Amino acid sequence: MTDVFVVGVGMTRFGKHPDSDATELGAEALLEAIADAGIDPRVIEAAYCGHVFQGMVTGQRILAQVGLAGLPLANVENACSSGATAIREASLAIRAGEHDVVVAIGTEHLTNQFQGALTPDPSDPEAAVGATMPSIYAMRARRYMEEFGMTREQLALIPVKNKSNAARNPLAHFRKAITVEDVLQSRPIADPLNLHDCSPVTDGAAAVIVMSDKAAKRYGKGRAIRLAASSLRTGSVDVVPTSMTFEPLTANTAADAYERAGIGPEDVDFCEVHDCFSIAEVLRVEGLGLFAQGEYPAAVERGEANINGRLPVNPSGGLLGKGHPLGGTGVAQVVEVVRQLRGEVGDRQIEGPRVGVAHCRGGKAVGIEGAACTVQILVR
Amino acid sequence: MTDVFVVGVGMTRFGKHPDSDATELGAEALLEAIADAGIDPRVIEAAYCGHVFQGMVTGQRILAQVGLAGLPLANVENACSSGATAIREASLAIRAGEHDVVVAIGTEHLTNQFQGALTPDPSDPEAAVGATMPSIYAMRARRYMEEFGMTREQLALIPVKNKSNAARNPLAHFRKAITVEDVLQSRPIADPLNLHDCSPVTDGAAAVIVMSDKAAKRYGKGRAIRLAASSLRTGSVDVVPTSMTFEPLTANTAADAYERAGIGPEDVDFCEVHDCFSIAEVLRVEGLGLFAQGEYPAAVERGEANINGRLPVNPSGGLLGKGHPLGGTGVAQVVEVVRQLRGEVGDRQIEGPRVGVAHCRGGKAVGIEGAACTVQILVR
Repeated sequence: MTDVFVVGVGMTRFGKHPDSDATELGAEALLEAIADAGIDPRVIEAAYCGHVFQGMVTGQRILAQVGLAGLPLANVENACSSGATAIREASLAIRAGEHDVVVAIGTEHLTNQFQGALTPDPSDPEAAVGATMPSIYAMRARRYMEEFGMTREQLALIPVKNKSNAARNPLAHFRKAITVEDVLQSRPIADPLNLHDCSPVTDGAAAVIVMSDKAAKRYGKGRAIRLAASSLRTGSVDVVPTSMTFEPLTANTAADAYERAGIGPEDVDFCEVHDCFSIAEVLRVEGLGLFAQGEYPAAVERGEANINGRLPVNPSGGLLGKGHPLGGTGVAQVVEVVRQLRGEVGDRQIEGPRVGVAHCRGGKAVGIEGAACTVQILVR
Repeated sequence: MTDVFVVGVGMTRFGKHPDSDATELGAEALLEAIADAGIDPRVIEAAYCGHVFQGMVTGQRILAQVGLAGLPLANVENACSSGATAIREASLAIRAGEHDVVVAIGTEHLTNQFQGALTPDPSDPEAAVGATMPSIYAMRARRYMEEFGMTREQLALIPVKNKSNAARNPLAHFRKAITVEDVLQSRPIADPLNLHDCSPVTDGAAAVIVMSDKAAKRYGKGRAIRLAASSLRTGSVDVVPTSMTFEPLTANTAADAYERAGIGPEDVDFCEVHDCFSIAEVLRVEGLGLFAQGEYPAAVERGEANINGRLPVNPSGGLLGKGHPLGGTGVAQVVEVVRQLRGEVGDRQIEGPRVGVAHCRGGKAVGIEGAACTVQILVR
């Protein structure tokens, strides 16, 4: 069976795009990925498009806009893991021997869909009793502080780190570094989380071109990055969660990915994780086994997760700094991992990384372990 | 590479389900498919869920409802081909060697989403100038009458045939046979199409369980039906269509499917096609190469497409008779094909079929050739 490689990557600026839409943003990202790969667009054999709220046949609209016709394309939705799921499905299509060159696009024009905040599905039993995303993550933060002695200041260091990284990312939604004081004084959302602890409402798109061995040899020009694992899992159906401070779903998905890639967490040089809230970054890196449970906040304080640290986390700025256009997010994470592995990201470059991980999770059907989680491992 | 087999099938009654939703309908269909396959649900390794309008993580909600946790699941959307796309993705996951037992669910609770008719996306350039689905198909019918001399009465024979079949299908939305007179006297929608020429707003779900060689040998108990091809294509980007009366998209998708299955249209014993409007059935069976262009209406008049005819078309009742719950449609077509090939459908049974075809197409981005088409070939 063939290995899978990422050969071309592209993404739009993340932020508010009042004069654009999800189709235009997706087309921009796709055209950049094609140019980055240096391929004739006609060698693309199939496509997947991840988005949440953009309506029927969004991916087909994107292909039409760039003049690509006749390909198999499926739109995929897995809440905040939609873009990552598009990459997973693209990699499956290659491993099935079905195609040699497949694009995965993730796009979302969130500001077209919402005035204000993301509202949960009215049929969600937790949301119906007020357990919205911010309130659930606030409870998890509070519980984590109780169990592991994390201070409010330690938690604030996560948005400080991520927005400092974002300030060095020309495509990020937020380009201004902030201080712990800024976090603590920002508007309360759900105690203890303030505005700077929450990811913003962002428009944006990203695209990656994945290839088989054979195609990567032909088109990769030595720049191909191996997608060593692309794992997807749905959560448990526990109504009462077994833990508020540890994520079995993230751990199980990661275990599958590590096994496929033939590596362990000790081999990971850096990661992009789903920091939809400041506390979420803690839960994710610990769920991935990259830091021991209860120890991440102190590690952040010691600078270990900084770009020049032992294990940089969210060098792109993450969801908190780069922004969070649902469908775009998972693809943009892989764009960042690839660019870091290629050494192309200027003053936020990590020194000589070999293994990068991207992690997404989103949605919830029942309980905090509901919905979809993805872990992708890329190796130079 | 492994062949792919359909081992278990299930579907809900199609119609109005005011006290249910897409999750409950999907769960009902899934549980029936599991029972039909006679498997322990824990052998299911992954899932795909096709739907259009049911909101975030619908497939995950369905798995939660039946108590299945931890699986990889992707929701897929391709307009009216969403359910068929779920089957195609499930078959790819098996051919990739990723899984041995995968379910594809299609579900839609349309009456929760619409009061009245399906409204096109406001960003659709054709819809913006009034070219809605009924008006486009009306123009195609008018043009076909002009080019090939089809009479209004011949066109009316298609809903007459399909609703007669539906009257024998206990799961169909409409259970009453109608006459040509009924069609001609029904309410005008877009001249020449009347109400009986249009598929209804339907709620419903269906599920199929697909397996690898190995798993089918273990669980199939001699009832496994081979999914010899599952092809998907996106249409061209022509703003001005090359033809109103022939569908290159259907023909191209079918050519791919026939090649994969190693058969030709002459080997097909019966088909389920996407008769969203009466004229659509004409365009589809001719696009599939099952009848020569311009000749289908006369063939219907001679009874060739009846259940006891030379090449039965839409024995289930089709979209016109069985109903059209967008995401549910493509999966339900395969359920019908499998049940026909197994000889399980009572008084609408075709005699000894060996090869059945299911065809869907839906949506449009630009031009009538936009969006997604699927052709699946099943062989006993």
